[in-house]
Amino acid sequence: MSPVSASTTRVLNAALERKIMSAEEAAGLIRSGDQVGMSGFTGSGYPKTVPVQLAKRISEAHFRGEKFQVSVFTGASTGPELDGALAMAGGIHLRLPYQSDPETRKRINSGEMEYMDIHLSHVAQFVEYGFLGKLDVALIEVTAVLEDGRLIPSSSIGNNKTWIDQAERVILEVNAWQPMALEGMHDIYYGLEAPPNRGPIPLTSAGQRIGSPYLQVDPKKVAAIVLTDSPDRNSAFKAPDEASKKIAGHILEFLSWEVKKGRMPANLLPLQSGVGNIANAVLFGLEEGPFEGLTSYTEVIQDGMIRLLKSGKLASASATAFSLSPEMLTEVNAHMASYRDRIVLRPQEISNHPEIIRRLGVIAMNGMIEADIYGNVNSTHVMGSRIQNGIGGSGDFARNGYLSIFMAPSLAQKGAISTIVPMVSHIDHTEHDVQVVVTEQGLADLRGLSPRQRAHLIIEKCAHPDFKPLLADYLDRAERLSYGKHTPHLLTESLSWHQRYLRCGQMKPKQEN
Amino acid sequence: MSPVSASTTRVLNAALERKIMSAEEAAGLIRSGDQVGMSGFTGSGYPKTVPVQLAKRISEAHFRGEKFQVSVFTGASTGPELDGALAMAGGIHLRLPYQSDPETRKRINSGEMEYMDIHLSHVAQFVEYGFLGKLDVALIEVTAVLEDGRLIPSSSIGNNKTWIDQAERVILEVNAWQPMALEGMHDIYYGLEAPPNRGPIPLTSAGQRIGSPYLQVDPKKVAAIVLTDSPDRNSAFKAPDEASKKIAGHILEFLSWEVKKGRMPANLLPLQSGVGNIANAVLFGLEEGPFEGLTSYTEVIQDGMIRLLKSGKLASASATAFSLSPEMLTEVNAHMASYRDRIVLRPQEISNHPEIIRRLGVIAMNGMIEADIYGNVNSTHVMGSRIQNGIGGSGDFARNGYLSIFMAPSLAQKGAISTIVPMVSHIDHTEHDVQVVVTEQGLADLRGLSPRQRAHLIIEKCAHPDFKPLLADYLDRAERLSYGKHTPHLLTESLSWHQRYLRCGQMKPKQEN
Repeated sequence: MSPVSASTTRVLNAALERKIMSAEEAAGLIRSGDQVGMSGFTGSGYPKTVPVQLAKRISEAHFRGEKFQVSVFTGASTGPELDGALAMAGGIHLRLPYQSDPETRKRINSGEMEYMDIHLSHVAQFVEYGFLGKLDVALIEVTAVLEDGRLIPSSSIGNNKTWIDQAERVILEVNAWQPMALEGMHDIYYGLEAPPNRGPIPLTSAGQRIGSPYLQVDPKKVAAIVLTDSPDRNSAFKAPDEASKKIAGHILEFLSWEVKKGRMPANLLPLQSGVGNIANAVLFGLEEGPFEGLTSYTEVIQDGMIRLLKSGKLASASATAFSLSPEMLTEVNAHMASYRDRIVLRPQEISNHPEIIRRLGVIAMNGMIEADIYGNVNSTHVMGSRIQNGIGGSGDFARNGYLSIFMAPSLAQKGAISTIVPMVSHIDHTEHDVQVVVTEQGLADLRGLSPRQRAHLIIEKCAHPDFKPLLADYLDRAERLSYGKHTPHLLTESLSWHQRYLRCGQMKPKQEN
Repeated sequence: MSPVSASTTRVLNAALERKIMSAEEAAGLIRSGDQVGMSGFTGSGYPKTVPVQLAKRISEAHFRGEKFQVSVFTGASTGPELDGALAMAGGIHLRLPYQSDPETRKRINSGEMEYMDIHLSHVAQFVEYGFLGKLDVALIEVTAVLEDGRLIPSSSIGNNKTWIDQAERVILEVNAWQPMALEGMHDIYYGLEAPPNRGPIPLTSAGQRIGSPYLQVDPKKVAAIVLTDSPDRNSAFKAPDEASKKIAGHILEFLSWEVKKGRMPANLLPLQSGVGNIANAVLFGLEEGPFEGLTSYTEVIQDGMIRLLKSGKLASASATAFSLSPEMLTEVNAHMASYRDRIVLRPQEISNHPEIIRRLGVIAMNGMIEADIYGNVNSTHVMGSRIQNGIGGSGDFARNGYLSIFMAPSLAQKGAISTIVPMVSHIDHTEHDVQVVVTEQGLADLRGLSPRQRAHLIIEKCAHPDFKPLLADYLDRAERLSYGKHTPHLLTESLSWHQRYLRCGQMKPKQEN
């Protein structure tokens, strides 16, 4: 589709049509020092041309010896045309929240870029409350501009409502690649006032709609509209590996047990699952499992969820973004009408809101980098100092959900790293927020257990046999020699596994190999 | 007041009156292995005679060589007649949640007692959901039993509603020492269904009432009623020391600044403050400060809050318990009628509910044991392994509040310990949940800052001059030598301050003294 036809079909408001300009011109409206709220959540719905042109401007300014940097706030991770391009140009001063771009990660970990890792449910309100300073620009991808100026959102919502409301100037990318059939799938809630005027959010089931399918924008704030025709760049689908399948198996067995014991309804409670291989494996497992009439209240719609919707096992899915493989995207775009009634995309302040997560009783299933024997979980930092992607929404769901499950294979780096360690090198989810830990070895149900009881169980159920004796030895000595015996630790040794990895490339001491 | 007159005036239901028996007889209804939900929150409203008799039974059983232990669930901390007596007898298998009894703490840290430290807002629902097994007995102090069998709660509510609803057998202590004028002050919400049937909690302001002033109990479950006439044992009031006053000063200055910048209404937002000296100092500061029409949505009503109510600065206070000095208690009991309209006591599942805390926009102010340079906070463990009291509700408020403030003097143990350390030895509140750190040295506003920016600010504003150069040196070397530069750490050194304290009794290296 050419920009011209996009213009005629996708920008139906005459006043706004006059704001159409090139990506280069639009990028010219962004100034050094600006704080820019951009759309985008897990590779969906991010602006695809203005950031590239902005990166070009920044590079040219740097080439001339001028300083040019912006702060970039998003929904979560985006695509290479946004994070990649801007990071490569050295154009980002501060980035928040979640990111997963290799170039961005490199710059953050080399100390060249400031990054602030905050809960996804906090982002919109922190900006609204003024905690992060003034938002200068909102740069938002949409599917279309209606005659009355309302906007059809694209494949993610994230913080778009807040960016548009809070920013001084708004730049829209109208992406003709996004199917018009998305219209009606979104649910933008405009009732969330700031305290002290906030009332209850009237959402009581995962698939319910409480808002409008459209974003509103004050036309006077719209500084530019750019026409694009570019695909989202999501990752290709990878079939679950053996470890993921085993983890999924343990979780499904556990959920069946919970139903049997009367601690959960037969159709479970709304499912949240993080992104990735293991999460998909769990969803695949549910496809063959005994549960019917499932619901999902989560951040992203992955391939596995579409399959569950297709098979009829999943009644409805709520999220803030799609995160589909190209093949699945083709399928969904072709049959959008049949999915539209069963999928709701919401602002992330609603998809991740503590009030709703607690009320619905969400089952939170999230990946982790490592867990320690006491059930503290590290989701973000490799060896305590190197950020991976960020906490995302895992804290929103784990803290306020009905049950919080954390999962990972028991080994990483071909066995050099044990996922279960004496003490994690960074904590994102404390002992108070982790109820179940799962690896391919097994599942540890930590509910009702003291730290020492948890430690014995996690070692027994979750640790890889290669590391089990080492962990048992640590715990045994800590139980005898620790200063306090509530959470026994030998501080001279508690982080020694990580130290050894940094020194020798493996966590195991030499004599153990 | 004698037991007899208590009987005639305080147990007005004829059927229940027939259940009156001695504490010794009632204690005889509790079996080894029972899980017992007891009333009590910060030294208020705990059962005062049955636990003592139970401890006696347990001691006698142990003397005979028989095993006798129970699991004790409460609201939070209690008094020496409960935690102290039972711990001393070795009668507690598992204790949860918050506790502050010296004997209990000793047993936990010697490894003789299992203790599970969970968020106060989780306790009731974990029992209701069946996560902690069956609740055998509820042992609850009340002020009176009405003709129709409803109960007037006493000076704390805690988890009493849930214990009474969930337990197989109920034992009531009717305490004639509690003033009858408490009637009407409580607000027991019976509308909180378990997911998937949970709806919004209709509470939209701190002082609002949404439930009943009375607890309900199925009379068939009442196994015993014991008449008592014993005072709550709360701590004596200590006037704020210099460090506390300075901390309070920094916080008040900060809040004034937030109002000035339009980030908070002129009457602030509902205040939550932890227990203790610093919290009281903040409340005292508010008494002389510029703010009018304040509200409070917190766990406990302390002396400072009563003074604020008296002066008219505080319009209303919501909590789950009183925690007053004996002098202030006399004052309140004498003028209960004048306070009753402005104080609401709620179940802790409501006082600490994420939904309400987020909606009202509570300003969370909590004490801490230590914070690290990146803003992670340890609220519970001394030197990583020895439990102090527990996390209490600090996580409920910090995570879901409008602003989370953590506060402590910059030094402990006469200067041997620095409250600001390179890496905390245990984490209860992660970098994602801490917005402001305050010591008597100053206040660090961490909003919008990356970890490295936070580290420089915390060292500059909060660290004691004795430790500032050591922290700056650590950070400087970590910024150069760390594996990743996002959260720079030297893992061989990050816990060395704690190690040194355990070895030498002080955190500073010898040559620095």
